[in-house]
Amino acid sequence: MTQDALRHWRRDLHRHPEAAWCEFRTTTLIAQRLHELGFSVVLGDQLLANNLIMGREIDVEAQKARALHQGAHPEWLARIDELTGVMGLWDSARPGPTLAFRFDIDAVEVEESQEAAHQPGQGGWHSANPGWMHACAHDGHTAIGLVLAERIAALADRLHGRIKLFFQPAEEGCRGGKALAAGGQLDDVDALLALHIGIHASSGELVVNPTEFLCSTKFDVEFMGQAAHAGLEPNAGHNALAAACMATTAMLGIPRHRDGMTRINVGQLNGGSGRNVIPGHARLMGETRGATPALNDYMFNQVQRIVEGAALMQGTTYLIRKQGEAIGIENSPALIEELVPLAQEIALETIHTRRFGASEDAGFLIERVQQHGGQAAYVILGANLAAPHHHPQFDFDEAVLAPGVSLLEAWLLARLGR
Amino acid sequence: MTQDALRHWRRDLHRHPEAAWCEFRTTTLIAQRLHELGFSVVLGDQLLANNLIMGREIDVEAQKARALHQGAHPEWLARIDELTGVMGLWDSARPGPTLAFRFDIDAVEVEESQEAAHQPGQGGWHSANPGWMHACAHDGHTAIGLVLAERIAALADRLHGRIKLFFQPAEEGCRGGKALAAGGQLDDVDALLALHIGIHASSGELVVNPTEFLCSTKFDVEFMGQAAHAGLEPNAGHNALAAACMATTAMLGIPRHRDGMTRINVGQLNGGSGRNVIPGHARLMGETRGATPALNDYMFNQVQRIVEGAALMQGTTYLIRKQGEAIGIENSPALIEELVPLAQEIALETIHTRRFGASEDAGFLIERVQQHGGQAAYVILGANLAAPHHHPQFDFDEAVLAPGVSLLEAWLLARLGR
Amino acid sequence: MTQDALRHWRRDLHRHPEAAWCEFRTTTLIAQRLHELGFSVVLGDQLLANNLIMGREIDVEAQKARALHQGAHPEWLARIDELTGVMGLWDSARPGPTLAFRFDIDAVEVEESQEAAHQPGQGGWHSANPGWMHACAHDGHTAIGLVLAERIAALADRLHGRIKLFFQPAEEGCRGGKALAAGGQLDDVDALLALHIGIHASSGELVVNPTEFLCSTKFDVEFMGQAAHAGLEPNAGHNALAAACMATTAMLGIPRHRDGMTRINVGQLNGGSGRNVIPGHARLMGETRGATPALNDYMFNQVQRIVEGAALMQGTTYLIRKQGEAIGIENSPALIEELVPLAQEIALETIHTRRFGASEDAGFLIERVQQHGGQAAYVILGANLAAPHHHPQFDFDEAVLAPGVSLLEAWLLARLGR
Amino acid sequence: MTQDALRHWRRDLHRHPEAAWCEFRTTTLIAQRLHELGFSVVLGDQLLANNLIMGREIDVEAQKARALHQGAHPEWLARIDELTGVMGLWDSARPGPTLAFRFDIDAVEVEESQEAAHQPGQGGWHSANPGWMHACAHDGHTAIGLVLAERIAALADRLHGRIKLFFQPAEEGCRGGKALAAGGQLDDVDALLALHIGIHASSGELVVNPTEFLCSTKFDVEFMGQAAHAGLEPNAGHNALAAACMATTAMLGIPRHRDGMTRINVGQLNGGSGRNVIPGHARLMGETRGATPALNDYMFNQVQRIVEGAALMQGTTYLIRKQGEAIGIENSPALIEELVPLAQEIALETIHTRRFGASEDAGFLIERVQQHGGQAAYVILGANLAAPHHHPQFDFDEAVLAPGVSLLEAWLLARLGR
Repeated sequence: MTQDALRHWRRDLHRHPEAAWCEFRTTTLIAQRLHELGFSVVLGDQLLANNLIMGREIDVEAQKARALHQGAHPEWLARIDELTGVMGLWDSARPGPTLAFRFDIDAVEVEESQEAAHQPGQGGWHSANPGWMHACAHDGHTAIGLVLAERIAALADRLHGRIKLFFQPAEEGCRGGKALAAGGQLDDVDALLALHIGIHASSGELVVNPTEFLCSTKFDVEFMGQAAHAGLEPNAGHNALAAACMATTAMLGIPRHRDGMTRINVGQLNGGSGRNVIPGHARLMGETRGATPALNDYMFNQVQRIVEGAALMQGTTYLIRKQGEAIGIENSPALIEELVPLAQEIALETIHTRRFGASEDAGFLIERVQQHGGQAAYVILGANLAAPHHHPQFDFDEAVLAPGVSLLEAWLLARLGR
Repeated sequence: MTQDALRHWRRDLHRHPEAAWCEFRTTTLIAQRLHELGFSVVLGDQLLANNLIMGREIDVEAQKARALHQGAHPEWLARIDELTGVMGLWDSARPGPTLAFRFDIDAVEVEESQEAAHQPGQGGWHSANPGWMHACAHDGHTAIGLVLAERIAALADRLHGRIKLFFQPAEEGCRGGKALAAGGQLDDVDALLALHIGIHASSGELVVNPTEFLCSTKFDVEFMGQAAHAGLEPNAGHNALAAACMATTAMLGIPRHRDGMTRINVGQLNGGSGRNVIPGHARLMGETRGATPALNDYMFNQVQRIVEGAALMQGTTYLIRKQGEAIGIENSPALIEELVPLAQEIALETIHTRRFGASEDAGFLIERVQQHGGQAAYVILGANLAAPHHHPQFDFDEAVLAPGVSLLEAWLLARLGR
Repeated sequence: MTQDALRHWRRDLHRHPEAAWCEFRTTTLIAQRLHELGFSVVLGDQLLANNLIMGREIDVEAQKARALHQGAHPEWLARIDELTGVMGLWDSARPGPTLAFRFDIDAVEVEESQEAAHQPGQGGWHSANPGWMHACAHDGHTAIGLVLAERIAALADRLHGRIKLFFQPAEEGCRGGKALAAGGQLDDVDALLALHIGIHASSGELVVNPTEFLCSTKFDVEFMGQAAHAGLEPNAGHNALAAACMATTAMLGIPRHRDGMTRINVGQLNGGSGRNVIPGHARLMGETRGATPALNDYMFNQVQRIVEGAALMQGTTYLIRKQGEAIGIENSPALIEELVPLAQEIALETIHTRRFGASEDAGFLIERVQQHGGQAAYVILGANLAAPHHHPQFDFDEAVLAPGVSLLEAWLLARLGR
Repeated sequence: MTQDALRHWRRDLHRHPEAAWCEFRTTTLIAQRLHELGFSVVLGDQLLANNLIMGREIDVEAQKARALHQGAHPEWLARIDELTGVMGLWDSARPGPTLAFRFDIDAVEVEESQEAAHQPGQGGWHSANPGWMHACAHDGHTAIGLVLAERIAALADRLHGRIKLFFQPAEEGCRGGKALAAGGQLDDVDALLALHIGIHASSGELVVNPTEFLCSTKFDVEFMGQAAHAGLEPNAGHNALAAACMATTAMLGIPRHRDGMTRINVGQLNGGSGRNVIPGHARLMGETRGATPALNDYMFNQVQRIVEGAALMQGTTYLIRKQGEAIGIENSPALIEELVPLAQEIALETIHTRRFGASEDAGFLIERVQQHGGQAAYVILGANLAAPHHHPQFDFDEAVLAPGVSLLEAWLLARLGR
């Protein structure tokens, strides 16, 4: 029955993938289900720090209309102001610690494969939203979260303490985690678990201490100058493209760092208009990376200084917008140790360390919990994959969902069981 | 009757404006009319030097289909391979000099005004091609040329020598003149007249020696490098955007010239793709200007050197494409003197010198004729305007067309009359 | 006798050329002579606005010792604190206007010719200070000023009003004029005359309205960053050389100006130390020019913005030091008209307009007088030259000195005679 | 007695430190001693490949005169054409392998300390050459080599095979090793040992497998353009300083490499002359580094491309001069193993691995031997130091010299003893 519910949710979500910050259908269905199961529901700016929202440029009304058309819950949709994402709070009313779980809910900008062998197509639950696809298993994460909520409701009498289920929007591009962490709902959490399906591990494996999470900042820069006729009065312009070119050149020259790997890229630059007009506007998209948060900070601090200097040189104004951010993750050692025997009981093979090698904004949540004295860990629930993450033929072995729920439930019982 | 024919042609052409290099309808109608009147018709690469074509990126089949739909002459359309423009040769079979006239036939990328007061709209002969408009009076120039052809046919018995009527494509952006000049059909011309309607002169005025034609080169540059993942192997890229930025910065630094006004602009730059990809491709649009051909050459020579150097610095390849070119114009003094009394006879007030202040690729034709020992001049046929050139409400006083024909006819008779 | 005195002074000064701001001998001899003749003597910061001194880096004690050794007047030398230059005020004690004259007194960094044909060498009055030479006729200007002082003393009873004789230091490099103008001693001047010997005019000619004085700003920029070991911790540096390179590149790219000639140059750049040290310091020397003060201001304003921006980009501090400055000159028309008949009386041929084509910091004095409601003019006293200005064989026809004095005296009498 | 000889040689050499490529006294004294002991002496271009000499700009005659004055051997000095450095070949005339040793002989540009506690000063054997000092123990290395030569002569009857003692010039700045390797004298060597005193190891220790030798290229770049008056004809210049600035900026932007540490620095730049002259000349000093030879090659290849491109952009010519080069070192494992028991026999404590962390051009010699099928190793002979290497108070415990000789002798006997 758990397996049926997991499959149901996963496929319904897979059929309706929603972009980062557009998860209106997903959010309302989760909210309604949590509500039905007796959870308190927390939404919007109760959950997210508005000023740290990144990479969100959406047409709210159009997205809500689309979501409604695709089966969003109308009443919850009405209650959502603008921000997606939802947290369910279950309170035993008995003293005890607060545990938390994080599930990310957004989809990826990938056109789902139409090939015959692709399971979602065969089953008729492939993406109904052209250009978007659950190609990173967040449908599976959300399904686990929803079935875990059912298990909590079923176990209600046997637990003490409190449980928070965080359904995070906009993990792709590392855009939502920072705002969720800063929202404050994690500050009283004693222990947090986040999981990800797949990622270099096979069905039946659990990686309890993944490493090498890349720290990165994604940013856009705009230079706003003054256009002028290049022939008639070149002196009247403030050349935004010249500023962008000098900034780009200077960014590429940010010195290497003694302490380890750093990266800088300006991936795209567009500036100017007519051939005979001094460019009044330019925009670039870039990213910094670092092996550690300090190294990434070093890089991004220099980017900011360079942009300011380049703007000054050309007499333009500028805007720097963070479009995404990820920091490192270091699992709490005691929590790692606690998970190993629990995994073994449900026949998951535990792998201690494996390279993650990508970015994850769960890092902000984990850091927040640890800074407030709690424990936190990010684990990989292995799964056989049909194709790599973000690939049009991505699919994962749904059989791993049930052990995923079991692991989280076992941990709940170990900590909160009476 | 002449006035009726002028109005008919002008308005038909105004109704069907065609972009540079897309003048298939216009070309075929002219060709047919010249043919009817007994002219030999010269087309395509008989007329234009293919290797000097600039700024031509069109879908020939789509444009031909559009032209056919809008009334192009099917047989002439079939004879056109790819290149627009047409010359009519009238040969008296009696010894004598060769005179030539140049009329430009293309329209401008301007959306024609829908305002009630705009005459073409009132008369129902406004542009049928969205986004394109005869907003620089080339419809008037072409009408003059066609009616002049009629006059020549009518005067046939009274003339000796030969007459060449050049209907030039792609004057806008200075894209066609150089290829037309190099095509060789001007090499035996003893005297060439080109005229332009409007341009700082009013109805009833004729400027016989306009000055300050700007020399300019319009160019596009592409840098082709090698994309690479900015995080995983930054060393594997050849950063085309970095090359474009350095080239842009260096171009802006081309030294001023002792001998007079120079200009440089990079009006647009677009490079790169994804934020985390080292840009493998970049493209920029620029222009140089100079008060003299030598000054413009100085500028463009430096541009070429800079582009080559920037490409080398980043290990990319590059392409520089001239997208347009204009040189200066110096009217042959004897020809100026010859026109003054002719103008007075038809009650045109002659103005000796007035600033032109823009670019004109008739300069190549004039230079070619003068280099081969002929005389050539570019004159302004004043006309009251509804709005400036290239403006959505541009319109000119059609009453100037008839005196325009009369002037050219009078000159013909003065030179070739028996 | 006047001719003897002129020759005496000119040759004594020629023998002892002194660099800008080092004119201690010259200043004391002038002061003593003015004092003897009954003038009040104004020195140092009574004369010059200290905060606008430019391009002055000298060893005062060494220069004073040298001057003393070469015949400086000991008592006046003791009264000079640090600043050279002197003004003599002659007050008739009768009501009347205040007239002023400006004579520049410094020499040029040129090694005087040893060739046999060079007159100063023949006469034994060639430069006694290796590397320095009166190669711009300031020795002649000063001689005229001193003999004019004698004439004023002789004419004392016949004059009303007041006369100020300004002996300006540091004209070379345009370093002293701005400070002299701002010193305030010109603010009550009703009319000022400045003259220059030579400059495209021959003996017997007087140019009363020279034109095309170049506006220019000479500047040094220092970037102070942080050195660091380039191998061990490149991140710890703030690369002053990188800032200087980017500033240089950006300065070269300051856009041309619609209104006329502009120039920019970075003539020298020195930065860094050891090969394996990130440069902590860099210094560059540059200049802007413009056909008008507004054009030069446009250029120098951009230089300042660029330097600030480049420093910001690299996290360095910076200093911009003006090392010299010249503005344009426009003679007061009424004063020009007044001089023409006076010149004719002493058989000087007046030339109205001739190109000056260099920089002169008398412009600041002239502007100051004109801003305070007075009249001012700069005239060229033609002289046959042995070689161009600043040339090792420069010499001028001493016969022009006497008419120079006569012209100034005639003007004095015309204005102040009773 | 060995100890006395070692001290004698070391102190005599310390007293007479000679710069890289100026080791004329040292070379002749070694040559004479080798000759006395029966070695064949190889000099100059018999030893070094002339085209790979780096960083050598000396006044040969002045240096030879100085050396003669300081006790150089006159006859050997006469035999030296220009190049310093010497090899002694000892041939047993009995079949057997060829062993080789490398000792570097040059001093460092450091002013030796005058402090009372500094031993060389106390003993009166401090540097007689102001500004130069044996502050890197090459005096000790050379002393070991000379006493080893004595031991070989003493052991002559007991050995077979051949022995080559390489006394290498110009190790500082990594200027001589590449030329020595390419000279060919190492090509028949079966096993090579090089040693260095000090370097993070204490008296009594021997590091048999030091790691992390930095690969580096030291280079100078000159840009030769065309000076021009910046005001009068800015177009006539080819701005060498602009080329240098753009090259510097671009070099700083060489992308990081996936495979590990890289470095780039432009440590010094000097360009231009007068403030109002477009710079016709500029020179910069730079270095690349890499964790591996491939990484350093990657960096230096990009430097070359950038310099060529920057020169092209400004229309200048350029010169790139390698001023030094070092590659990595990987000791032959079998040779490491062979040394361990030999060291233990003479009571040296062997340390397997320790970070070297600097550059050594012995790498070229080791690579050459290994490429020709031989074995080679670089070992650290620990020594207590008074101050770090290259410090004005550097001094080392002379007691380590004797065990150094013993180790080399023991190895000789183990390999060549009969």
